[in-house]
Amino acid sequence: MFATQALRRAPLTVTLIDRRNFHLFQPLLYQVATGGLSPANIAAPLRNILKRQQNARVLLGEVVDLDPPARTVRLADQTTVEYDALIVATGVSHNYFGRDDWSARAPGLKTIEDATEIRRRILLAFENAELTRDPAARAAMLTFVVIGAGPTGVELAGALAEIARDTLRHDFRAFDPADATILLIDAADRVLPGYPPDLSAKAKRSLQQLGVTVRTAVRVLEIQADKITLQTGEHVADLAAHTVLWAAGVRASPLGALLARRTACTLDRVGRVLVNPDLTIPNHPEIRVIGDLALLNDEHGRPLPGVADVAMQQGRYAARAIVAELHGRTLPPFRYRHKGSMATIGRAAAVADFGRVRLSGYLAWLAWLFVHLINLIGFQSRLLVLLQWAGNYITHNRAARLITHDQSEREMQPESRSS
Amino acid sequence: MFATQALRRAPLTVTLIDRRNFHLFQPLLYQVATGGLSPANIAAPLRNILKRQQNARVLLGEVVDLDPPARTVRLADQTTVEYDALIVATGVSHNYFGRDDWSARAPGLKTIEDATEIRRRILLAFENAELTRDPAARAAMLTFVVIGAGPTGVELAGALAEIARDTLRHDFRAFDPADATILLIDAADRVLPGYPPDLSAKAKRSLQQLGVTVRTAVRVLEIQADKITLQTGEHVADLAAHTVLWAAGVRASPLGALLARRTACTLDRVGRVLVNPDLTIPNHPEIRVIGDLALLNDEHGRPLPGVADVAMQQGRYAARAIVAELHGRTLPPFRYRHKGSMATIGRAAAVADFGRVRLSGYLAWLAWLFVHLINLIGFQSRLLVLLQWAGNYITHNRAARLITHDQSEREMQPESRSS
Repeated sequence: MFATQALRRAPLTVTLIDRRNFHLFQPLLYQVATGGLSPANIAAPLRNILKRQQNARVLLGEVVDLDPPARTVRLADQTTVEYDALIVATGVSHNYFGRDDWSARAPGLKTIEDATEIRRRILLAFENAELTRDPAARAAMLTFVVIGAGPTGVELAGALAEIARDTLRHDFRAFDPADATILLIDAADRVLPGYPPDLSAKAKRSLQQLGVTVRTAVRVLEIQADKITLQTGEHVADLAAHTVLWAAGVRASPLGALLARRTACTLDRVGRVLVNPDLTIPNHPEIRVIGDLALLNDEHGRPLPGVADVAMQQGRYAARAIVAELHGRTLPPFRYRHKGSMATIGRAAAVADFGRVRLSGYLAWLAWLFVHLINLIGFQSRLLVLLQWAGNYITHNRAARLITHDQSEREMQPESRSS
Repeated sequence: MFATQALRRAPLTVTLIDRRNFHLFQPLLYQVATGGLSPANIAAPLRNILKRQQNARVLLGEVVDLDPPARTVRLADQTTVEYDALIVATGVSHNYFGRDDWSARAPGLKTIEDATEIRRRILLAFENAELTRDPAARAAMLTFVVIGAGPTGVELAGALAEIARDTLRHDFRAFDPADATILLIDAADRVLPGYPPDLSAKAKRSLQQLGVTVRTAVRVLEIQADKITLQTGEHVADLAAHTVLWAAGVRASPLGALLARRTACTLDRVGRVLVNPDLTIPNHPEIRVIGDLALLNDEHGRPLPGVADVAMQQGRYAARAIVAELHGRTLPPFRYRHKGSMATIGRAAAVADFGRVRLSGYLAWLAWLFVHLINLIGFQSRLLVLLQWAGNYITHNRAARLITHDQSEREMQPESRSS
């Protein structure tokens, strides 16, 4: 989308193809999953963003094939679209590292549907705890396990702790929601492994203050119905847990593999496409891969992180490169300008790494609020999110905690199932 | 919910049982279905509403049986709840009058899921029209039929017209959304049959000005894939239509039939429970039926309408009646105080019937906005809805137009299907 917008004044036509009709602001998706915001607050309809851009058209469709020699892409409905230059930015989804059978028990968080499903599971666990009279069953219902302590895992665990200790404090009569166990597990030896160690330590302390049990250097061996098995040092421990959330790894979109079949490009272990310094792929200067799907090292030989900021900068670079070619020029290689990374943990707690400046606590949280607000698309979204954050902060409520799209509910209403 | 709240200071304990964890403000559901508002804007979590009411507890569950002699209700998970007094307020769902096979083709609008499904269908029809190159297929995709011209049907048709003529005006490149056909059909001889004839005429005129084709005194004979068959006077006409919405009739919740099996109460043709003037049922002064599920005539012998205002007043009456009994007193029969009825048609167009005062146009629309805002629960909801309405009015946008929970999308993501 940023590439399309950056081509606004270029003498060419742009076709933006997406499976979804909206641009999703991923960094706030965990707030939908935890009832703080509504899906529409963080999803802007593509057509609305581009309505005034006359050289752009939007097609709702899924790319199922590419023909690089013919320069065409084919959509699932058999529509064929021709191109002179192609930008592939289809991102990543969850990676269960060979255990895709875990996906039903431990959903990941990448789409709006994932977020409302996770929200449903979290809220339903508390509801079921109010109904049951069996203390062991209730303890399992009130045990939440987050696997993966990167930014998403940390943010989910922090929000879960806040829900249990704060949001739901007066909501139940049969138990105290503060008795819930929230476990954050990672195989790495610290939370936020991509951050400087001192910020990891601060994040861990903040999580513990919120009541999250942090267990690092622990591997998950098995996820079964109502039970997960951990390898802790030499021991193997079983844990009764009703709700398990997956934030442990990513796998490239299938378009990476498709591209590798149709061209000679190389994929890494999780299916990301190795790109040239100008984001093109070998032998195809007209094809660029950007965002989470692309694998590119920075000047220190470290791969660029899979964050929104990299993707946005690469989108704008790809657009400028295409325009430069039109004028017979070539751009210097892409260079990522690191503006900072930040993760929020809870009420007035966050960590932020701006290179030389590192923040934690209240200041980092304010910086987080500010940066995420200005990165939302549309004045109205910004205002609505700001108001909801203010409301949630003041009232300790999360107004969007709805249990919707329940499978059993759907079975009772056959009319809402078909399409 | 209004009954529970009205029992706040009574010396008894209240158990509120609901299948959903939120109170839904039905009159604004069509705005979710047409992308103007988000589900959470019109749905307030029950636990949050009642968190400070110590004598109330909330159970998330579905009532599957009643035992009036033992004074218990049984939930789907086999929990049994005892009562001294029972209030049944489970409302109504769609009625296809014996043609339940139409439900998949012509969804009705009663739940959040219905609303997001209708939103998905409306938006997808426009998206598919952009993809196709077949003019006949495109015309069918751009034909929207709303069956039933009561308030919900009128509001849906008006919003659809606004979407086509206004919201999406600059959004497509292959066709003009204003070419969409929006058809409002009713077997009755006028729109809004429950309103005075002069307001029906005004509503019809407003709809036509928005570009809605109003066809009254027309029966729907058959709904098939991409085609519906109408009986117009002596003729039978086929109509190619991709999107069909059902707003034609209601059927009582199955709890009415359950009550009739377990007690001697009488049901009407659509399954509503005939109640005594004090809202109890025969031989069971401890059981009250209220809201859309109850059938009660007013002082002129006409049945009370199935609107939120009746339900709210009956809820408060039922609570007062229970408290009166505690003190050995009896209340006079329930009497509905008609405050007015109103339906909105589109941008600055509505009709309102306050008895002697009847409004239409801009004034009625302002009255509609005001009344619906103040009836929303929670200051934050009111503020958020007001801001979104202002934003939608000024920018001609509908920011919540997301296509979500697509069935085919779900098939691609097996993890989000299971529960």
